[in-house]
Amino acid sequence: MAKLKRAERLEKFKEALQENPFLTDDQLAQLFQVSIQTIRLDRNILNIPQLRERTKEVAEKSFNGEIKSLESEEVIGQLLDVETGVSGISLFLIEPEHVFKRNYIARGHYLFAQANSLAIAIVDDVLALTTAANVFFDKQVKLGDNVIAKAKVTETTDKYIQVSVESFVNSELVFHATFEIYHRTDKK
Amino acid sequence: MAKLKRAERLEKFKEALQENPFLTDDQLAQLFQVSIQTIRLDRNILNIPQLRERTKEVAEKSFNGEIKSLESEEVIGQLLDVETGVSGISLFLIEPEHVFKRNYIARGHYLFAQANSLAIAIVDDVLALTTAANVFFDKQVKLGDNVIAKAKVTETTDKYIQVSVESFVNSELVFHATFEIYHRTDKK
Repeated sequence: MAKLKRAERLEKFKEALQENPFLTDDQLAQLFQVSIQTIRLDRNILNIPQLRERTKEVAEKSFNGEIKSLESEEVIGQLLDVETGVSGISLFLIEPEHVFKRNYIARGHYLFAQANSLAIAIVDDVLALTTAANVFFDKQVKLGDNVIAKAKVTETTDKYIQVSVESFVNSELVFHATFEIYHRTDKK
Repeated sequence: MAKLKRAERLEKFKEALQENPFLTDDQLAQLFQVSIQTIRLDRNILNIPQLRERTKEVAEKSFNGEIKSLESEEVIGQLLDVETGVSGISLFLIEPEHVFKRNYIARGHYLFAQANSLAIAIVDDVLALTTAANVFFDKQVKLGDNVIAKAKVTETTDKYIQVSVESFVNSELVFHATFEIYHRTDKK
């Protein structure tokens, strides 16, 4: 995209965020070929909060009524969508505490935690415990990435549910897993 | 064990902790058939710190010189032993923030994090990244449990290392996993 005057850019800026509310300042800066400082100023002018606040707004649409298997604040990342028994989507921002100090690569257990807690969240039962998992770290995830995890139930029996999760950064697959989850209708 | 007088109990108490320094107050209370309050008093008399402090003392034996693949404080749990390229042992106490609120069962990703970070720690190389994992949650782990993870390298090739981890609570297997870890001698 060629460099735009501020007025034009502000218009495009609003459109871009309407289309994808999860764009980071970094991605916006690249998109508009301006500095991150300029993007922050633009956000201020337009009164658009930073990504973390924006996703909180989305997440404020509480899923507490829909989720049975855990408290919604126990999901690692922010739930964007849940259809219990069927599927779910969550967003997790990779912040400094989630990466190895020496190379800024996200630590595996955070990707696991996002995927596993999303898998649990879509189980349509009050007790849901993971019994096994098959996990693949397909591509390095870095500080500042926002990871979108998509889970779907692939098999259901009386006692077990199988959930498959795929996680993406900028539409690229970075992680996938299959979880086998034991479920029951009482909490003990 | 029959109920003992305090003086006798204090002697046995010291012996028991010498044999297994990771006994919790709860386990000691069961062992000596007294209340946890009594155990705390006994500890005070003997000037024995609580488990968390005791394990810190063990962990103060720093492994920073031995571990190459991450900073030793990045290991989840407390490293008790490491022989890089061969094996390692760590301890993780299940505290309130590690369990589901409704049933006090430990959340899977903490057991995963303990095992995975231990597996990484024993890799004898500066770059070590998990590429895949096969994980089994064999038995529920509860609030207050102390989980001992034991890792060993089972296969090494030029690019990949396979590490098998078994985690125990009171000598019972609660979790086991196999990690496939990519390794390289530079940090990029």
